[in-house]
Order: sequence, then structure tokens, then C-alpha cells
Amino acid sequence: MKILGIEHIGIAVKNLEESSRFWNEILGIEFTATDDVDGQGVITNIYDTGAGKIELLISKYPDSPIAKFLNSRGSGIHHICLQVDNIERAIKYLSEQDVNLIGNSAVIGAEGYKVIFIHPNSTGGVLVELAEKKN
Amino acid sequence: MKILGIEHIGIAVKNLEESSRFWNEILGIEFTATDDVDGQGVITNIYDTGAGKIELLISKYPDSPIAKFLNSRGSGIHHICLQVDNIERAIKYLSEQDVNLIGNSAVIGAEGYKVIFIHPNSTGGVLVELAEKKN
Repeated sequence: MKILGIEHIGIAVKNLEESSRFWNEILGIEFTATDDVDGQGVITNIYDTGAGKIELLISKYPDSPIAKFLNSRGSGIHHICLQVDNIERAIKYLSEQDVNLIGNSAVIGAEGYKVIFIHPNSTGGVLVELAEKKN
Repeated sequence: MKILGIEHIGIAVKNLEESSRFWNEILGIEFTATDDVDGQGVITNIYDTGAGKIELLISKYPDSPIAKFLNSRGSGIHHICLQVDNIERAIKYLSEQDVNLIGNSAVIGAEGYKVIFIHPNSTGGVLVELAEKKN
């Protein structure tokens, strides 16, 4: 597998407009898209630094992973996403290394990328998403 | 101020060798340097994806910010670092915006960069480092 870079940092927030003020208006990071990723129970606002994105995440449902995170830890960094060249090869390789993946196969995440998450118990406490960009 | 990109993600760990196994050996992210940043009470191992770095941080002292973080939350993402074009301009601008900076002026961080931290209470729960690279 080949890591191509940090694709984004996912930040769980309670209010998109309020959080947008800091990342977009104060820091001046360009807003690029809003995406509704129903499979993960989130709506995300995406801001692009030009070298890595900031994704603000709000929960769509009271039992979504983001809702549970916000309830237990409050707003803050939820996950980091690394871009890979080929998600299927990454899944095969990581499974062979006994890395604990969440789910058995890639799903479609924000921006239509093919994604899978690595469980924090395999990474030292960090929820790591791997993403292959759409062709 | 101008954000140039995600410079790195700082991850607090208890054991550099053990954590290095995942980021370097399994994910294959290239190790580039070890840096002793005594002012922040940390030793950091730096891994470069080519588009954003992973910095693993261990505490040098029992009362350092990283030691306190590990004691209260365990290993995991400690901060994110955004590269800026000019740290002095960023400090002046953010102060005018009533953003809560930690300290009044930039200090020298890992890799000799000029850095300052933004308090999580101004960012929605995220410890944000700003860094200007050495010329």
C-alpha cells in the first residue's frame, strides 16, 4: 500500500455555522463543499487549505458515531484521513498485518471517495480513515 | 494571515518505538527526524507522507503538557499544525480577532520552526499550532 498524504482532518462540531467562523472566516481556509454522508450519519462542511482539508462534521442522528463522540468527549478532532493509491490493496495488506479495520470492505464517504476506517486500538488511539479518490 | 497547508498532526504516545511500528513499518510513512524540543518538554519522531507529516510525541518530564494529556486522555491526537506564511502577522491578526493564543509571541518548535499555539477554547476544542518554516 502507498500513503499519498494527509487528505483531511475530521473535526466533530455541534454547530456548523459557529465552527465555520473560526476555520473559514478567521483563518481564511476556503470553503469548498457540503456533503451529506448518510451512511456515516454526518453532514460535513469541507475547507481546503490547498495542502490538506479540514472537515467539520455534525451528526444527522442521535445515535451516530459523531453524536456518541460529542456526547462523551465534546467537540474536537474525531479522525484523520490519509489518502491511499488503492483502497482494495490497502485493505488486503492491512488485514494480513492483523490491523483491526472497521468493516470488511470500503464504503463511499465524503466527496465520493472509497474509504475504510482503522480502529484506534490498532493505531495507538487515533481513528484513521483511508481514502482513495474518485478517478 | 495566510494558511499554506496542514504541516503535521501531533500524536501523544507513551512509547516511540511501539508507536513507530504502525506509522512507519505498517503504513510505510517515511521517518525523517527525531527532535528534542525541550521548551515544550517533548521528544518527537517525525514521519513525512510527502503531503503533511505525522509527529509522534513523548513527554520528557512528568509535568509537561504531553504528560498531562496522556494522563487524562491516553494516547491519541494532541494537536494539529497549520503552516503560515508569516507568524508575526498571524499573531497580530489573531490577537485583533480576540483569538486566545497561548503565550504572547512565537517560540522555536520542532525542526526550528517559529510556532505559536491557539487555545482550544477559540477553535471548538482543537489545539491548533501555527508554524512558519525556517528560511
